[in-house]
Amino acid sequence: PHPQQLSAGIIGAPFSKGQSRDGVESGPDRIRAAGLLDRLQLQGCAVKDYGNLTFEDFVLDEPVRGSKRVRAVGSANQRLSEAVQTVKRDGHTAVVLGGDHSLAIGSIHGHAAAAGPLSVVWVDAHADVNTPLTSYTGNLHGQPMSYLLYELRSKVPELPNFSWMKPCVSSRDLVYVGLRDVDPAEHYILKLLGVKVFSMSQVDQLGVARVMEETCDYLWERAKKPIHLSFDIDAIDPSVAPATGTPVVGGLSYREGLFITEQLCQTGLLSAVDLVEVNPLRGQTEGQVHSTVSTAVDILLGCFGRLREGNHLLDYSLPEP
Amino acid sequence: PHPQQLSAGIIGAPFSKGQSRDGVESGPDRIRAAGLLDRLQLQGCAVKDYGNLTFEDFVLDEPVRGSKRVRAVGSANQRLSEAVQTVKRDGHTAVVLGGDHSLAIGSIHGHAAAAGPLSVVWVDAHADVNTPLTSYTGNLHGQPMSYLLYELRSKVPELPNFSWMKPCVSSRDLVYVGLRDVDPAEHYILKLLGVKVFSMSQVDQLGVARVMEETCDYLWERAKKPIHLSFDIDAIDPSVAPATGTPVVGGLSYREGLFITEQLCQTGLLSAVDLVEVNPLRGQTEGQVHSTVSTAVDILLGCFGRLREGNHLLDYSLPEP
Amino acid sequence: PHPQQLSAGIIGAPFSKGQSRDGVESGPDRIRAAGLLDRLQLQGCAVKDYGNLTFEDFVLDEPVRGSKRVRAVGSANQRLSEAVQTVKRDGHTAVVLGGDHSLAIGSIHGHAAAAGPLSVVWVDAHADVNTPLTSYTGNLHGQPMSYLLYELRSKVPELPNFSWMKPCVSSRDLVYVGLRDVDPAEHYILKLLGVKVFSMSQVDQLGVARVMEETCDYLWERAKKPIHLSFDIDAIDPSVAPATGTPVVGGLSYREGLFITEQLCQTGLLSAVDLVEVNPLRGQTEGQVHSTVSTAVDILLGCFGRLREGNHLLDYSLPEP
Ligand SMILES: [Mn+2]
Ligand SMILES: [Mn+2]
Ligand SMILES: [Mn+2]
Ligand SMILES: [Mn+2]
Ligand SMILES: [Mn+2]
Ligand SMILES: [Mn+2]
Repeated sequence: PHPQQLSAGIIGAPFSKGQSRDGVESGPDRIRAAGLLDRLQLQGCAVKDYGNLTFEDFVLDEPVRGSKRVRAVGSANQRLSEAVQTVKRDGHTAVVLGGDHSLAIGSIHGHAAAAGPLSVVWVDAHADVNTPLTSYTGNLHGQPMSYLLYELRSKVPELPNFSWMKPCVSSRDLVYVGLRDVDPAEHYILKLLGVKVFSMSQVDQLGVARVMEETCDYLWERAKKPIHLSFDIDAIDPSVAPATGTPVVGGLSYREGLFITEQLCQTGLLSAVDLVEVNPLRGQTEGQVHSTVSTAVDILLGCFGRLREGNHLLDYSLPEP
Repeated sequence: PHPQQLSAGIIGAPFSKGQSRDGVESGPDRIRAAGLLDRLQLQGCAVKDYGNLTFEDFVLDEPVRGSKRVRAVGSANQRLSEAVQTVKRDGHTAVVLGGDHSLAIGSIHGHAAAAGPLSVVWVDAHADVNTPLTSYTGNLHGQPMSYLLYELRSKVPELPNFSWMKPCVSSRDLVYVGLRDVDPAEHYILKLLGVKVFSMSQVDQLGVARVMEETCDYLWERAKKPIHLSFDIDAIDPSVAPATGTPVVGGLSYREGLFITEQLCQTGLLSAVDLVEVNPLRGQTEGQVHSTVSTAVDILLGCFGRLREGNHLLDYSLPEP
Repeated sequence: PHPQQLSAGIIGAPFSKGQSRDGVESGPDRIRAAGLLDRLQLQGCAVKDYGNLTFEDFVLDEPVRGSKRVRAVGSANQRLSEAVQTVKRDGHTAVVLGGDHSLAIGSIHGHAAAAGPLSVVWVDAHADVNTPLTSYTGNLHGQPMSYLLYELRSKVPELPNFSWMKPCVSSRDLVYVGLRDVDPAEHYILKLLGVKVFSMSQVDQLGVARVMEETCDYLWERAKKPIHLSFDIDAIDPSVAPATGTPVVGGLSYREGLFITEQLCQTGLLSAVDLVEVNPLRGQTEGQVHSTVSTAVDILLGCFGRLREGNHLLDYSLPEP
């Protein structure tokens, strides 16, 4: 699709309760301040900003069998799910600016509620598929995919403030790209369910071009479902995107990150994008924060049709002397 | 060709009037000071240094329909064209050390005047193919290819001090590598003329090895013309070559830059090389300047037969105890 | 082989007399302090630490026809050879933590003495195959392969304290990966003997995946010999592993380094590993030292079955609510 045909509906989701580090709640505003909206419009994309969500406070939110701040995360995701449904029903491609990755629960749930069965492309250093019972840390940003997968329903206990949601993604409709820090339980789950995984080993083995070709082929084999891209900025190498909570060496290059978005955009099926885990307080210098934030912006521009070879409007005509 | 058979004729072109930042005029001396001549000779290449050109000053050089310092740039390029013709008639591979990229006008013109129809390989973050009428900035370093292409003749107005030159390159003999910051008008022109472009997307898609294979195949299909390599140091990623006027993220790696030169050298057709836009004043530390300059030197060494697997003289014999 | 089936026998070899820079003798302790042993065990690998070797001092160790500290290097390598033989006879995969690369003489000699004919994979910016008669510097860390190759026996003079060893590697059983700074004499030797070399040019040409495929195919063609991996940390790019004596730009990425170890581990033939030339005093900041040391650790973990896609124990079972 030509950028001129696209429209973006932007939701700020200043979530931080899915993990323990301050700062990730300022991600949405920093990404906007870097010029996301203007630059989307400049490249011919319509933009509607739905503003930042606000979330209910929970004074008493004690861990539930080790899982931390479950009530806050459950409640916030319910709001996000509704917001994403509104954006989809308004006809936009949804953009959710995080915030931590636990927001994928509400984002993907809302997307599926409005658009039906989805393909999910999860770009991340981590699989985020621990169940509440396998998590070492109890942080919900390491667990969202376990709540969302049909096949894990019996493995996830009922939690307070999660009764509004049910699993809505099939493990055959999920593709991971960029994994390199996977817990043993997560590895067991991915093998058990036969999830399509392109870890950094596979990216090195195949190259990012074949990874994306295989990803698109795999998703298209069954049906051309709307694609939900959930992009954790920590997928990108810390030399480029250091301002994040759990950086891991050996990540995707800036170029590989951009290439992934260019290819997904060209499917014409990209229907929602999460951009999560930008944490301005985790940069050691202003330069590190700037590099992280502007990488996030470029990833989003790539999702909406920006090409490195350039773009021009259909009615362009060259001036003559 | 074995380095022992090569000879380099080096011209310093301390141009800076094609853009607005101080410092790029010291590129030639910094590149020489990093040992270019000695290292070329050490690897078996004959070297003649033609010194630095000097350029006429123009006190009154007001913009012409938005284009800046046209008289200075036109006059300087005329001198450079003559110098390149001399170097080529002396039998050397020409090396033009910039200076800004507007010098490609004189360098390519002079090369074609002495050697006949050329192939041009333009390695750059930018296409530098704005016409004076499409340029946002009026800087001539963003326009040289529009002056040089036959097919754009009717789109470029007559400018003072440019009557000495005519277009001399066919759009079918031009290949771009490394593009990632292309203006809409430039993108329109490249599509209109069907120019062969390997933007960074294509480098990611195909890999640099196939890019160079396709580049060489494409140039050889029509005729084995002498190759003019115009290498803008900003093609290389700013993490490696930051000391330049208009750095753009997501560039070629040092290794990709070297690989390009190794492959072009092995065609045996490389007949002239521009190395432009090294600006020592744009480095934030001496380390950044050093990295930029030594990358420029390594690129030039690669053009003259240096191989990373090593080289040895034909008559080498191994000492015995 | 599954990590659970592997066992590592670790020898610290605080050699530094094969070169002239202080600091490389503290490599073994720094690599251990970064958690190597715990992390190997955590991934299911049995570990026995044989401690650090101590070496005889030579007050009078004048250069022998230009070669420096020959007596110390010869004597230390004899001890190391014996230690490696012990580790191999105890049934472990040997891990030799350097120390400078001259230790490969004893390490490979001891490995071959215990295990019979070997394949050698030498990952390095340098070929380290100068003879005492071709070396510019006289440093033995640039010469170990010339002592070890059958085919160079007549080119290497007898040296004091080397009478205990004889060549034990055929040039057809040697593969280089990562070369980019090769002396003319070394290049002559590699061509003369027809050694399989993947310089950085070939890595760029083929990609690391095909390099490793060709490496494994080449080694398997003749016979499935035990593999000796001699990994010089300077093979990795100085942006990642700067704390080393002779860094060279344009090296392997962290990801390529890891990929090499993953592939070699999967052959099931990896029988000994040297990790050499980590020099903590050559880092300009503590961050540079940390990056170098932790890259060394990750390379070793990759040799013992760590996968970036994750691992889980064979008897893992998923907890249910
Ligand atoms: Mn992550
Ligand atoms: Mn995540
Ligand atoms: Mn440029
Ligand atoms: Mn340019
Ligand atoms: Mn080395
Ligand atoms: Mn070495």
